[in-house]
Amino acid sequence: MPTLSVFMDVPLAHKLEGSLLKTYKQDDYPNKIFLAYRVCMTNEGHPWVSLVVQKTRLQISQDPSLNYEYLPTMGLKSFIQASLALLFGKHSQAIVENRVGGVHTVGDSGAFQLGVQFLRAWHKDARIVYIISSQKELHGLVFQDMGFTVYEYSVWDPKKLCMDPDILLNVVESKQIFPFFDIPCQGLYTSDLEEDTRILQYFVSQGFEFFCSQSLSKNFGIYDEGVGMLVVVAVNNQQLLCVLSQLEGLAQALWLNPPNTGARVITSILCNPALLGEWKQSLKEVVENIMLTKEKVKEKLQLLGTPGSWGHITEQSGTHGYLGLNSQQVEYLVRKKHIYIPKNGQINFSCINANNINYITEGINEAVLLTESSEMCLPKEKKTLIGIKL
Amino acid sequence: MPTLSVFMDVPLAHKLEGSLLKTYKQDDYPNKIFLAYRVCMTNEGHPWVSLVVQKTRLQISQDPSLNYEYLPTMGLKSFIQASLALLFGKHSQAIVENRVGGVHTVGDSGAFQLGVQFLRAWHKDARIVYIISSQKELHGLVFQDMGFTVYEYSVWDPKKLCMDPDILLNVVESKQIFPFFDIPCQGLYTSDLEEDTRILQYFVSQGFEFFCSQSLSKNFGIYDEGVGMLVVVAVNNQQLLCVLSQLEGLAQALWLNPPNTGARVITSILCNPALLGEWKQSLKEVVENIMLTKEKVKEKLQLLGTPGSWGHITEQSGTHGYLGLNSQQVEYLVRKKHIYIPKNGQINFSCINANNINYITEGINEAVLLTESSEMCLPKEKKTLIGIKL
Repeated sequence: MPTLSVFMDVPLAHKLEGSLLKTYKQDDYPNKIFLAYRVCMTNEGHPWVSLVVQKTRLQISQDPSLNYEYLPTMGLKSFIQASLALLFGKHSQAIVENRVGGVHTVGDSGAFQLGVQFLRAWHKDARIVYIISSQKELHGLVFQDMGFTVYEYSVWDPKKLCMDPDILLNVVESKQIFPFFDIPCQGLYTSDLEEDTRILQYFVSQGFEFFCSQSLSKNFGIYDEGVGMLVVVAVNNQQLLCVLSQLEGLAQALWLNPPNTGARVITSILCNPALLGEWKQSLKEVVENIMLTKEKVKEKLQLLGTPGSWGHITEQSGTHGYLGLNSQQVEYLVRKKHIYIPKNGQINFSCINANNINYITEGINEAVLLTESSEMCLPKEKKTLIGIKL
Repeated sequence: MPTLSVFMDVPLAHKLEGSLLKTYKQDDYPNKIFLAYRVCMTNEGHPWVSLVVQKTRLQISQDPSLNYEYLPTMGLKSFIQASLALLFGKHSQAIVENRVGGVHTVGDSGAFQLGVQFLRAWHKDARIVYIISSQKELHGLVFQDMGFTVYEYSVWDPKKLCMDPDILLNVVESKQIFPFFDIPCQGLYTSDLEEDTRILQYFVSQGFEFFCSQSLSKNFGIYDEGVGMLVVVAVNNQQLLCVLSQLEGLAQALWLNPPNTGARVITSILCNPALLGEWKQSLKEVVENIMLTKEKVKEKLQLLGTPGSWGHITEQSGTHGYLGLNSQQVEYLVRKKHIYIPKNGQINFSCINANNINYITEGINEAVLLTESSEMCLPKEKKTLIGIKL
């Protein structure tokens, strides 16, 4: 019988994420509020699910003709086709030219893991990653763990108040970096599916090759299934098939078969015009609701006379956005008001509803009045591009 | 605009697996038969699903109280507890001592990937793997891809006609190897859940630390969800928590959240005595049916007077087993009879039913009579142990 542990050199890992939620859960204060959920919340404070998803899920579970066999390693073929059409548009030139493909993955994290493994295998000297966004924490760690040096980069156009695609393109060309886009919730930014992926169309039109992590968990409300895809755009079909065949080998070792349930539900919706219409309508309602919440937060802060300009709140699209608070103010909200906000001040606006909006805005007012104000650099980019220097 | 492909050095990957199925699908012969499906098949030739699974799945999809939020990175807690109790028994000393834990993974491949990543990170010098089983192809590739040298090893006791746990234990001790068990379908070997994991109990009782990949996809018939767990047995709770915390970090980068649906269905069944009873009964029926099929195959071959002893067919337990044919005979069956069998002659006996048994046994008879007979080394071990030299 062995006497020493094989694991004796293994220390307890330092937890980087999730500690805010943990502290929130351990807090006994009755009016505590958590504003950092990853998922979109309803006005009643539950994770949002598109109604058409519930209907489709029930329909599928009652269908005796379906089988529950392993999916191929590449995933559900109809799901890949439908998701690519959603991302690029049905009549995309790149789709017509057969130079766009994808591997069905376990969520967007799975797509990043797979893509990074591929780049490490075929561009062994690649060691530098530029993250063009404010999402360094989330994605940076995966790259750091795989031995990359991570730099942040901004391509914000201060005149147009947006991310300038031309600046972005120049950066990519001049630094010879390979673009790896992240589309985590198409349709939840502007509710216009096409508008939300315009940057991809632009890169395709300019003849670029790239990877893209596409997640369909958030915009359908199927969070627990991790429905994702690693999208590959190549210069031609021959190169695409080579890349996909190598990715298949990597996916085989990672999980062998991706999970089916979520992809099956989503494919049923995307391939049925009536269900597709219902889904689009549900996205519209969510986005309108979030915009309304942001308007109300801005108005209430202005009515309270809270120092500062709060226009940036409504200028941001999507579920998540910056309050524009400094770290002292964030700390005040967490410690004194039991309003849980990440250190960077980026909150999930769908967590704010009629029941908590007054408490939250009054809390923000108090935090701004009672703490020292300091210059705040508000992160600008909403979309994430990860550039790998090859 | 870039002119050269970033992927121009990437060749088409050489496909190792799946080509037999592909050839089968492309075959136009009307009576073609595929005997290498990974899943358990019904007498009607469909993938087997435990009836209680279908019932539970429907019940879950009709439950409005459930949410579909992301699972924690470690997975569904109740699933982990229920699956560990299934594996070790509810009153296992190791469970009572809090030194057994698990990470909910994307199938058994995910469990292997996660476990191997951990061992690479914490035992950087480990480079040699012993695979004690006949499953070198399946598991060996994952280890080879990660830079290990893979050796096959046998611990068959020719007198007792079984894998001798004492020989196994001596091997593990003398070579200082870390055991990584594979339990892909508990209950589908003998239909006795406890009997099918006795080797684990034995190693626990001897005070060993080990990993185990546990899959619950095959024994419930939820193939398309990849329900797995990486099981960790440590010498004490403190070491266990350290290992689990490091595994959490690795799982975060791999898929962040494991898929929920399959685990939710299985947990509902394992935690409800009535449903659990139904599931056990369904396992019993499957195993009895497979044994009956094997008996019939043996009888028919004996009636046909096929040269050779066919007792080994009924001596093997589980869905998959060896026919004991040499490579020439296998090739004859594939080429001449359109009966698709892997090169090693291991078939899925649940693919044989009343409709095809005569054609198959007559084919085997023909193959044996018409090809030269040669010494056959029949792989013996049914259970897989992967030993990593630390």
